[in-house]
Amino acid sequence: MLPPKQLQNSKGLSKTIYSLENIASIISGRLIGDPNQLVDTLSPIQHSTHSSISFVSSKKFEKYIVGCKAAALVVADSYSPNDNKNYILVKDPYYAFAILSKMFDPIEDMFEGIELAPIINSNPDVDQTAKIYQGAIVSDTASILRDAVIGPNVFIGPNCVVGEGTIIHANSSLMRSVVIGKNCIIQNNCILGSDGFGFAPSKDGYQKIHQLGKLIVGDNVEFGAGCTIDRGALEDTIIGNGVKLDNQVHIAHNVVLGDNCAIAAKCAIAGSTKIGKNLQMGGLSGVIGHLEICDNVFIGAHTLITKSIREPGNYVGIMPAQEHKDWAKSSVAIRQLGKK
Amino acid sequence: MLPPKQLQNSKGLSKTIYSLENIASIISGRLIGDPNQLVDTLSPIQHSTHSSISFVSSKKFEKYIVGCKAAALVVADSYSPNDNKNYILVKDPYYAFAILSKMFDPIEDMFEGIELAPIINSNPDVDQTAKIYQGAIVSDTASILRDAVIGPNVFIGPNCVVGEGTIIHANSSLMRSVVIGKNCIIQNNCILGSDGFGFAPSKDGYQKIHQLGKLIVGDNVEFGAGCTIDRGALEDTIIGNGVKLDNQVHIAHNVVLGDNCAIAAKCAIAGSTKIGKNLQMGGLSGVIGHLEICDNVFIGAHTLITKSIREPGNYVGIMPAQEHKDWAKSSVAIRQLGKK
Amino acid sequence: MLPPKQLQNSKGLSKTIYSLENIASIISGRLIGDPNQLVDTLSPIQHSTHSSISFVSSKKFEKYIVGCKAAALVVADSYSPNDNKNYILVKDPYYAFAILSKMFDPIEDMFEGIELAPIINSNPDVDQTAKIYQGAIVSDTASILRDAVIGPNVFIGPNCVVGEGTIIHANSSLMRSVVIGKNCIIQNNCILGSDGFGFAPSKDGYQKIHQLGKLIVGDNVEFGAGCTIDRGALEDTIIGNGVKLDNQVHIAHNVVLGDNCAIAAKCAIAGSTKIGKNLQMGGLSGVIGHLEICDNVFIGAHTLITKSIREPGNYVGIMPAQEHKDWAKSSVAIRQLGKK
Repeated sequence: MLPPKQLQNSKGLSKTIYSLENIASIISGRLIGDPNQLVDTLSPIQHSTHSSISFVSSKKFEKYIVGCKAAALVVADSYSPNDNKNYILVKDPYYAFAILSKMFDPIEDMFEGIELAPIINSNPDVDQTAKIYQGAIVSDTASILRDAVIGPNVFIGPNCVVGEGTIIHANSSLMRSVVIGKNCIIQNNCILGSDGFGFAPSKDGYQKIHQLGKLIVGDNVEFGAGCTIDRGALEDTIIGNGVKLDNQVHIAHNVVLGDNCAIAAKCAIAGSTKIGKNLQMGGLSGVIGHLEICDNVFIGAHTLITKSIREPGNYVGIMPAQEHKDWAKSSVAIRQLGKK
Repeated sequence: MLPPKQLQNSKGLSKTIYSLENIASIISGRLIGDPNQLVDTLSPIQHSTHSSISFVSSKKFEKYIVGCKAAALVVADSYSPNDNKNYILVKDPYYAFAILSKMFDPIEDMFEGIELAPIINSNPDVDQTAKIYQGAIVSDTASILRDAVIGPNVFIGPNCVVGEGTIIHANSSLMRSVVIGKNCIIQNNCILGSDGFGFAPSKDGYQKIHQLGKLIVGDNVEFGAGCTIDRGALEDTIIGNGVKLDNQVHIAHNVVLGDNCAIAAKCAIAGSTKIGKNLQMGGLSGVIGHLEICDNVFIGAHTLITKSIREPGNYVGIMPAQEHKDWAKSSVAIRQLGKK
Repeated sequence: MLPPKQLQNSKGLSKTIYSLENIASIISGRLIGDPNQLVDTLSPIQHSTHSSISFVSSKKFEKYIVGCKAAALVVADSYSPNDNKNYILVKDPYYAFAILSKMFDPIEDMFEGIELAPIINSNPDVDQTAKIYQGAIVSDTASILRDAVIGPNVFIGPNCVVGEGTIIHANSSLMRSVVIGKNCIIQNNCILGSDGFGFAPSKDGYQKIHQLGKLIVGDNVEFGAGCTIDRGALEDTIIGNGVKLDNQVHIAHNVVLGDNCAIAAKCAIAGSTKIGKNLQMGGLSGVIGHLEICDNVFIGAHTLITKSIREPGNYVGIMPAQEHKDWAKSSVAIRQLGKK
């Protein structure tokens, strides 16, 4: 079997060429066609080229197969090819797509060519294999573990631990007392471990409650760009393993998020709410504080959850959008419901 | 005609003094009054001074004319002055205001006095006329074109192009593969080209889909502070010419935004949605993924669009705010509608 | 009375040990029990230890008193202890908690061990007692007053004033013309003084209105992580004394926020809205532009205010969340209300 072949251009983009035999082996698929056919890129099926591989992840894309020029198509093993194109049949084409996306990623090192930070203090807790890039600033009470990557202009505050293989992208801030597990990705301009919103009212205005807890993050967690995750007030904020947050998500102090929750952009979880495993949450939604949400709950977009949820299921609270004149009437009618 | 006269104070603020003749010429207006009257600032009509110029952009401000002390007033050419103040009549006073705001802006160079970054690598693709300020870090596979300005502590990642005359403000991040056109403004702490939210579920948790597309931004685009704009998954995210985004807007991967869309603060557009020209969107609103929105659509504030829109118009989905006791009754009644 | 005793560990965390006599004196409480009992930490009542002090801030926590191992409990002076634990009785246990949280905060200096920035310009308006940390960049037309702290990689733009004792955390940006009072806290990655969203439509697209006003912030204000606060267009944006904003709040240009407003995460206030004192606002809510909101208004979470509010009270506009099948019916019924 021909080994994959790597090329690199002057702009630091690499290109790897694989034979279909290589690919079928990597994605555990059954090849129908030419094992020596070479491919050098991954493309959507509507825009494939003679050297690209494409995939069909749902029935609605099957209509594009006829006109597709791709060197090969990854399809579900339930599909019966009826032409002489090259096919790789797999159990789950979308999962295969994820693997292919990594194989054909032309940028291996996001910070190639960026200088490392000068040694600014003699912190014994920065592992020799960790990379700390220019402009990044690490408190001398933080620990940076094996193979971690601290991107340019990142700030790592006191009492933080960045786990093995975790990457923190440019301009992110770990305020203090953040413990991150292995192989996490923190995208740009995230703030982890910020002060929670805690104040005691008094005759002299609000008195700040110092936030003494930690933010504890599991393994394989990803934070999208611009997320803000507060550390705990007295107890800790906890983010389970495998959690994926989209951009601009806010998690307040003392929240517990179970493993494998996936939360879309711009959601907010208010303080002390405890959420089970496998939550899925559409964008712009929220959960108010001090609730309990069981495992396997799906919350629609632009929905606010105001009561604890004890039963798995699909919960939605979207005000339907209408043309303005119709909405004006609905709106009046809803107000009238409140006067009865 | 007297030329404008520039003064500068010790705090780096400049002040330019114009005669009304100068101003009338610049804003293409018809002057009624003293061409040699000097003005040195722009003020709201309610708070004008003897050396300021003010403007009346709608009828509701006409009531302030009587008591106005301004050296001159810019009014619509349909207005008939009936006193002996100085007036400049123009077709569109609000547009004239925009021009005046630039003429009287006391800060010409936002980064005056900030040092440039030392040359950190010999990147042949940074134009000699571009300015890269202290703390900014530019990947050696990025291109910075003529007259571009990279503000302090900005990060420009691999495979990015910053177009002619584009300014990127402090602490913003271009993660990777971002191509920005001419004369754009990226305000502070924006993240462009972040990883889209793409994961394939598997028995071992979510498998990350590497995001291989670009973010392509047209000319004259402005991003407000703290926006997050993902690059494409396989195809590209595209932002048309003249698009204006307010603060904290989120645009997901593979979105296409047509020319001259204007989106208010905290909106979100989910993945793969295609939007035509001239969208206007109130704050805190969203559009779910994989929709098509035609040209010339107006979406109200705090509204979620869940279906494609084929007809131009005004779409709203706001739950009316009420006093709590009335809302409680409306809320129960809405739930009952769902049980019938 | 024994003085408090301070210990410091190798990770820069300090621990102060207080006697109950000390504590009762500091929080103005009446001690019932052993004045010489020592405590070294503050804990929630459910997770107390033999050397911790806990508190009971509401009746619902009284059930934990029986099993509590804490060295002492802070309770309301209306509570009658009926066991032989140590108690400190105070008027307001939650306020006492705020004071205790500061006393037991193990991190006194968030930037201990971080180097100061080299002197990058000879700005006469940086007070000798101010600290400017590594990577921070200060315009030479900015003023940094007594005891102010400018965190790592912060940008302070032209025409800004940072007041006495105010702390700005890492990676925040003050774009321009921001005047901040005394003893404020700006958490990480905030943007203050950004350009407001102002454009005049024209046949050539939107023409930018230069924003010539300031952002004026009172004393004792706190901005949560990732907030964006625009400066004024012609007049100023004003944030009153004692205002507390949670994470990712957006305040548009020309807004006036009265003293002691408290706004939860992800809210937005649109341009030119004037808000009185003591507003409380739940997360994900908004107020549209050009409104007036009187003093002492409470706005629920995920609510949009579209009309001025003249009467203090509690206003809510949440679409109730339901199981998907019920919501689908409610949604159809609401649309039908709009067709009548």
